[in-house]
Amino acid sequence: MENLTPDATRDPWLLTPGPLTTAPEVKGAMMRDLGSRDDGFVALSERVRERLVGIVDGGHSHVCVPLQGSGTFVVEAMLGTFVPTDGEVLILVNGAYGRRMADICERMGRRWQVLEAAEDAPIDVVALDEILTGAHHITHVAVVHCETTTGMRNPLEAVADVVASHCRGLLVDAMSAFGALPVDARKVPFDALVASSNKCLEGVPGVGFCLARRQALEAAAGNSPSICLDLFDQWRAFEGNGQWRFTPPTHCLLAFDKALEDFLAEGGVAGRGARYRDNCRLLVDGMRVLGFEPLLPEDLQAPIIVTFHTPADPRFDFETFYSELKARGFVIYPGKLTGADTFRVGCIGHLGSTEMHGALAAIREVLSELGVASGAPERSAA
Amino acid sequence: MENLTPDATRDPWLLTPGPLTTAPEVKGAMMRDLGSRDDGFVALSERVRERLVGIVDGGHSHVCVPLQGSGTFVVEAMLGTFVPTDGEVLILVNGAYGRRMADICERMGRRWQVLEAAEDAPIDVVALDEILTGAHHITHVAVVHCETTTGMRNPLEAVADVVASHCRGLLVDAMSAFGALPVDARKVPFDALVASSNKCLEGVPGVGFCLARRQALEAAAGNSPSICLDLFDQWRAFEGNGQWRFTPPTHCLLAFDKALEDFLAEGGVAGRGARYRDNCRLLVDGMRVLGFEPLLPEDLQAPIIVTFHTPADPRFDFETFYSELKARGFVIYPGKLTGADTFRVGCIGHLGSTEMHGALAAIREVLSELGVASGAPERSAA
Repeated sequence: MENLTPDATRDPWLLTPGPLTTAPEVKGAMMRDLGSRDDGFVALSERVRERLVGIVDGGHSHVCVPLQGSGTFVVEAMLGTFVPTDGEVLILVNGAYGRRMADICERMGRRWQVLEAAEDAPIDVVALDEILTGAHHITHVAVVHCETTTGMRNPLEAVADVVASHCRGLLVDAMSAFGALPVDARKVPFDALVASSNKCLEGVPGVGFCLARRQALEAAAGNSPSICLDLFDQWRAFEGNGQWRFTPPTHCLLAFDKALEDFLAEGGVAGRGARYRDNCRLLVDGMRVLGFEPLLPEDLQAPIIVTFHTPADPRFDFETFYSELKARGFVIYPGKLTGADTFRVGCIGHLGSTEMHGALAAIREVLSELGVASGAPERSAA
Repeated sequence: MENLTPDATRDPWLLTPGPLTTAPEVKGAMMRDLGSRDDGFVALSERVRERLVGIVDGGHSHVCVPLQGSGTFVVEAMLGTFVPTDGEVLILVNGAYGRRMADICERMGRRWQVLEAAEDAPIDVVALDEILTGAHHITHVAVVHCETTTGMRNPLEAVADVVASHCRGLLVDAMSAFGALPVDARKVPFDALVASSNKCLEGVPGVGFCLARRQALEAAAGNSPSICLDLFDQWRAFEGNGQWRFTPPTHCLLAFDKALEDFLAEGGVAGRGARYRDNCRLLVDGMRVLGFEPLLPEDLQAPIIVTFHTPADPRFDFETFYSELKARGFVIYPGKLTGADTFRVGCIGHLGSTEMHGALAAIREVLSELGVASGAPERSAA
């Protein structure tokens, strides 16, 4: 991405969990006004749906249901559509996005329980197996693939195996990982998996989607307590005439269609994932040179967003660090942990090695300006 | 709008209830990527919220709560947030959008009843008064300002007076009329009024908003059965740090901000409404010359979208009429009435007299090509 060097006239690079930096061509695709019932837009919606199913090789078993709104809207829609009123969902929690699923279920009056791990520990698959062995009333298990709170990659494949062995339905919040971490619907059994336009697929925010096992979706008719968030009804409308039930964000869809074209041209999950792994490696290595310590060990770290401990040096002030980096063209993200003082740097979006090197140079410069000799945290894990 | 004459390279003009044709400058505002927690975006969100409250002169009493998704999402959010679980809402129905509010309440388990009028008749305010006199358990009344099914303007001011005289809460779906028909919060008492970015305000679709009486919103904490669609929680987040709870459609907001700037520059509701009234008058007069008959009498017709009876001539085929008009650069809309054979032509969006004259010329041409001598319906009202 040699031509993407930041300059004084552009917006800063977004090293965040989203909204992300997108390609000029993706934004440029929005310079049109299409009618939502128009043949061209119907064909575009169909193409987007097919390409999304293709990413998990789910064409024979799964369907795609896009939904207006942010990623959380389609997470709530998934829980309300797939967990029946007499069902119960076991939610695997090791961060804010797992906890949010519990909040959603509590509010809509669905029965739920959690299996919780520490924020810096992966989900315990053995404990999951034990719970499902004992609790026959649990109909579904919900898991976050990459927990953006920390950047943790949860063991989706192992979770899916256990859930399938107990014949329960698996619901996956794959929001921040979809398109970068591979998921093969033929090998990882799931009833529903949700993600959005503006994470690793590099569209603009405004639409989410659910990849649903057709049989599970057909069985979910009438479950949802919400008309807008009913993924069964939304799917039936697409199957009927290819149209959205309610006004779609047409410009966002134009951008998403272009973003998916670029995604496939980059080599799909393999190509996109490789670029993000390079970004992540450059970032972590470069930060370690400056003394910073990532929260997670390498084997738990997804190449999406990295949590770093706050430096011990009292001259380090996060607000100053943030705004000085922004002035240099790079936006980072605050931490979200309940237990530790941290900040986060993302490595997804329309950026590559040039931008990661640029970010590291800016970080080095700001540290020096602040008089911070090292990014090392209070009690270094090193 | 002399410079907006359609040409062969542009998308057709959208004479529909939305998505609509927007200004190139509005779409052009989307060519940026902003972080949602960024100061600039926080300021933009605040400016949009303030300007929307300003449109109803509600600054002293009302607040604005934007919500991700289509217009229907914020309609559902309004009903779920304001009608408590032990409340009951009387829904005034004379078209599909009124009926949809009943469907939403039924699904979410809120008590509701309807006062129904024929699709070509306005809401009966005397009957409303009688019902409220007898039914003390009704806590709220919901009404559609302009019923897009027909293009009917419902008597919002009279409804509001009756509802206020009975001390009930008024909930308004002002989706298709907001920005073109005046509503003054100091004279028209309402608890909540919802609309969206992509109707008369001429932004792109992807965000709705609720203008809420602050005291009514404060009393609505915990009512909503949905985390995502809880307008109280959404408001508290804005009041807390100016940020959206969940990822906002940043590009859509950039466009909305520009669209509101243009709206104010055009003279707000007075200017925008005047242009649409001109569009509507040109359309109806021109169509009458061709023999077409509008469904509604002039005093019930809002200057938003006009329903015409299908011509009696058997050579008239709507699908051909539609696609031949589209080929000439104008997209119209099918009818939605349950009882009569109709089609619709919108007069909102970034279009003026040049485009309305162009549409009429195209309609005349297509009629002639079809061999249809007159647009007169089976039993003309004329």
